Amino acid sequence: MTTEFRFAVNVTPKPGILDPQGRAVESSLGHLGIDAVSAVRVGRRVELTVAADGESAARAVVERLASELLSNPLIEAFAIEAIGATSSTVGAPG
Amino acid sequence: MTTEFRFAVNVTPKPGILDPQGRAVESSLGHLGIDAVSAVRVGRRVELTVAADGESAARAVVERLASELLSNPLIEAFAIEAIGATSSTVGAPG
Repeated sequence: MTTEFRFAVNVTPKPGILDPQGRAVESSLGHLGIDAVSAVRVGRRVELTVAADGESAARAVVERLASELLSNPLIEAFAIEAIGATSSTVGAPG
Repeated sequence: MTTEFRFAVNVTPKPGILDPQGRAVESSLGHLGIDAVSAVRVGRRVELTVAADGESAARAVVERLASELLSNPLIEAFAIEAIGATSSTVGAPG
């Protein structure tokens, strides 16, 4: 039986890698009168649905996609987050 | 006492809003031989550190920043995620 799983892939610049978008956010903070924010890093978040027989098979597809298409392994790290099975039937009595 | 809290702001295109980056990812899937992936949405993930007296004060700063600087409320939704206090001292015996 095939179930659809929803995942998010969070792609962030590796530590030490220049992050111009993060610097741009930091330099905008003064205009908003916010001075307590630091260490801003800007990355991407990709949400997607995978149809697979089980969560481990689905996660394997996402891992391949994250490393081959969604991130640049030289400068970016990624983390995979399960955000729920979208079409499995889970009984919740009561 | 001021503690530093680390948050992530996940910014995603609202449902129904055109997502050209998501379409681009979907059309690349065929080249990788992946056919079980659908409903791809591409957004941003901003990670930042806030110095505040408590988590609720820190979260209020992040909410303001997310709505005024990090997202476009017409076409994007955001979700705030706490990813741990970075400099509080938490005792962990053993």
